[in-house]
Amino acid sequence: MPRKKDVNRRDFLQKSAMAGAALAIPSSQGYAKTKAKKTLSSPKDVIRMGFIGTGLRGQGHVSLALNRSDVEVVAICDIDPRMIERTQNILTRKKAKIKPTIYDQGPHDYLRMLEEEELDAVIIATPWRWHTEMAVAAMKAGVYTGVEVCGAFSLDECWELVRTHEETGTHLFFLENVCYRRDVMAVLNMVRQGLFGEMVHLECGYQHDLRGVKFNDGETAYNSGVKFGDEAFSEARWRTWHSVHRNGDLYPTHGIGPVAHYTNLNRGNRLTHLTSMSSKSRGLHDYIVNHEKGGPNHPNADVEFSLGDKVTTMLRTAKGETIVMHHDTNLPRPYSLGFRVQGTKGLWMDVNSSLHIEGTSPSHQWEAAASYLEKYDHPLWKRYESEASGAGHGGMDYFLLHAFVESVKAAQPAPIDVYDAATWMAITPMSEESIRLGSQPVVFPDFTRGRWMHRQPVFALDDAF
Amino acid sequence: MPRKKDVNRRDFLQKSAMAGAALAIPSSQGYAKTKAKKTLSSPKDVIRMGFIGTGLRGQGHVSLALNRSDVEVVAICDIDPRMIERTQNILTRKKAKIKPTIYDQGPHDYLRMLEEEELDAVIIATPWRWHTEMAVAAMKAGVYTGVEVCGAFSLDECWELVRTHEETGTHLFFLENVCYRRDVMAVLNMVRQGLFGEMVHLECGYQHDLRGVKFNDGETAYNSGVKFGDEAFSEARWRTWHSVHRNGDLYPTHGIGPVAHYTNLNRGNRLTHLTSMSSKSRGLHDYIVNHEKGGPNHPNADVEFSLGDKVTTMLRTAKGETIVMHHDTNLPRPYSLGFRVQGTKGLWMDVNSSLHIEGTSPSHQWEAAASYLEKYDHPLWKRYESEASGAGHGGMDYFLLHAFVESVKAAQPAPIDVYDAATWMAITPMSEESIRLGSQPVVFPDFTRGRWMHRQPVFALDDAF
Repeated sequence: MPRKKDVNRRDFLQKSAMAGAALAIPSSQGYAKTKAKKTLSSPKDVIRMGFIGTGLRGQGHVSLALNRSDVEVVAICDIDPRMIERTQNILTRKKAKIKPTIYDQGPHDYLRMLEEEELDAVIIATPWRWHTEMAVAAMKAGVYTGVEVCGAFSLDECWELVRTHEETGTHLFFLENVCYRRDVMAVLNMVRQGLFGEMVHLECGYQHDLRGVKFNDGETAYNSGVKFGDEAFSEARWRTWHSVHRNGDLYPTHGIGPVAHYTNLNRGNRLTHLTSMSSKSRGLHDYIVNHEKGGPNHPNADVEFSLGDKVTTMLRTAKGETIVMHHDTNLPRPYSLGFRVQGTKGLWMDVNSSLHIEGTSPSHQWEAAASYLEKYDHPLWKRYESEASGAGHGGMDYFLLHAFVESVKAAQPAPIDVYDAATWMAITPMSEESIRLGSQPVVFPDFTRGRWMHRQPVFALDDAF
Repeated sequence: MPRKKDVNRRDFLQKSAMAGAALAIPSSQGYAKTKAKKTLSSPKDVIRMGFIGTGLRGQGHVSLALNRSDVEVVAICDIDPRMIERTQNILTRKKAKIKPTIYDQGPHDYLRMLEEEELDAVIIATPWRWHTEMAVAAMKAGVYTGVEVCGAFSLDECWELVRTHEETGTHLFFLENVCYRRDVMAVLNMVRQGLFGEMVHLECGYQHDLRGVKFNDGETAYNSGVKFGDEAFSEARWRTWHSVHRNGDLYPTHGIGPVAHYTNLNRGNRLTHLTSMSSKSRGLHDYIVNHEKGGPNHPNADVEFSLGDKVTTMLRTAKGETIVMHHDTNLPRPYSLGFRVQGTKGLWMDVNSSLHIEGTSPSHQWEAAASYLEKYDHPLWKRYESEASGAGHGGMDYFLLHAFVESVKAAQPAPIDVYDAATWMAITPMSEESIRLGSQPVVFPDFTRGRWMHRQPVFALDDAF
């Protein structure tokens, strides 16, 4: 197997060509800085994967990877010994043939892993603040990079991902699992077959009562107390700080991901601007005060939360579609991503599981969506339904990992790539800016530098991945 | 019965006092300009009503008025002989005891009606462009003014309504019928009883496929062709021009009306700013081109429509609630006002007829709203259900006219008053402005001049009206 540092100029150009037709040729200086390995440059049947971050989300990916004969889990990295131990238990339970090397020597030990291991791919599932620097390091190391979802902190960070990809030629796969939700994919099928006509208006978001996630008792992840930060366990250790200090759409990608495919964002279309508005903040404070382990005298009752309970963002595309995005994680409510897909011939909404198609549905009336979702079930789901059964989040996590692994094996660009990552993640700092400025519109950078005009859709075009 | 022109200063001050506690005393000059009659100054049992505009909407009001023993329909005014004739047919069918005087001498004949008739009240149901000047004239004539819903053209127009009310002391009732919808009122009852906790986020709008209203064959009002303007019948004669020339939320009040009561707008709270976004415009053109009476060669196929198929507006209140408002009238879809009422303890949505109340509903799950809507049925609906049966728009038109007539009889300020009218109507020109400026935020004037801080809710507090 080729070792690092024996990359030559021809290899690099090959990889660059794969990254996108109109990719600019990087300066030799930019190239000299990269540590790209040759492992990516040719297709292979079995890949060697490392995992940076083996918290509850990372463990899910490890577990699914161990189900596959085409993946070897060769390295895992985490700062929390409890999480390493849990992951090792999964390896034992799944009778893993390979014992992965453990990287647990502090927050930067992932760099040693990238240096020492011969990895074909890495999955990054760490707290949000680490995603970009880890993804950048992985791309520089020439390792096909899968990075979990988050919003960005700044536009510069989004550009850094794009620049690093373009300089190294290493692919980045943005691991947005909701793109693979069964109804979401069936509707994509319907959109592509023209059932809704030309797209006009879409809605989406993240409406999930996370109060029991943002706080716990320090031992049990969910619904167990009112602690957060260092005294808490799992996500409540870090995610809650974002609700303390930030006000914007902190988690835009579960919504915009599917909508991006419905409207061909970065592939013939792009987001042009957004405006964002935030409500008052009550929910998290109330949760602490009213919880049996909290109360008005609990120290966390004094914490002031910046995040409005409901943040709404309106976005517009170059092709004239409008998008409304909901962020609603602090109040008691049922889970709903709030999809609405509306075109010149009809619309689908997920909250009432209904649709209306002109000429087919009774005039001015809803129809249950179920029979349509079945009829237009995506080829991928038809083919892999049984394999997906039991995988996380209703099976969609199977398809996500499947697409990642197959992309790596084929040494192909990711179907959800670095331009999508940059665009979708940018919504967060842009919505924060808009809210700070009294809902002023904020204009999207064109992360593709004009290539959106000619890039073609590639996501889930058939039943391969 | 007192005649016009015998108003004296004491009368005027009495009326002024009724109009609002902190009402400024107008200059004698302002007073001299008014032609207020004395008819308003004292309660009465039977009122004399005139109708300006007896199109299909006006006919609905006339018909309901004729059901009441406390209303005399004494004058009707319209420019269209077909509409006068239809109204006379209603009078005959309902065996009206009084034969109303007809005012049909052109578009300004309503001024003669206000001058010559002894009216206690007038209902204005004309095309939007006439609402303000007719309402202003009616208030100046001292006639309790009921004016149908619309959006404004300018903020100046909204101020003119306010100023005229303040100068004349004549009341204006903004005839927003959806405030009286049964589920809307039940939810108001629930909001007031605290079921949803403190209000946080609301949604509303007007999502109604009006293609069959904006176009017809010139003889049948609905779904009969692709004509509009002078060759068309009823609303298509005038309403469609607004879709040709304007882009904004053209019809905001069915949505904001109920929301205003949920959030006490102008009564302890107020709207501070909005931002608006419009999609591409496709629906009306497509309708003409695809209609069997239209086609690509029909002259109307060349018309360019300014109105985006979906206009979305976000509004914010002084108390920190956010409101999302939908305007969606050009595409095939089921009717939906899209209500969402969300507070710190739960939410209701009308599109899925469901709600979630913390501590009552199963955790993270929807419950059918039906049993709650029944349990919290508003006292007004409980009392007048049988009277309302058969009235327009599911019975709500009964309650609207009932409230109007009872307010006139009691010589009381309107429960939906001139400040509400000005605020709600202002959304239209403000959303047009925001869209023109690339979704920039636009700030609401305070039409109450600070009185919103101390004004108390008055809408539907009991079962009277």
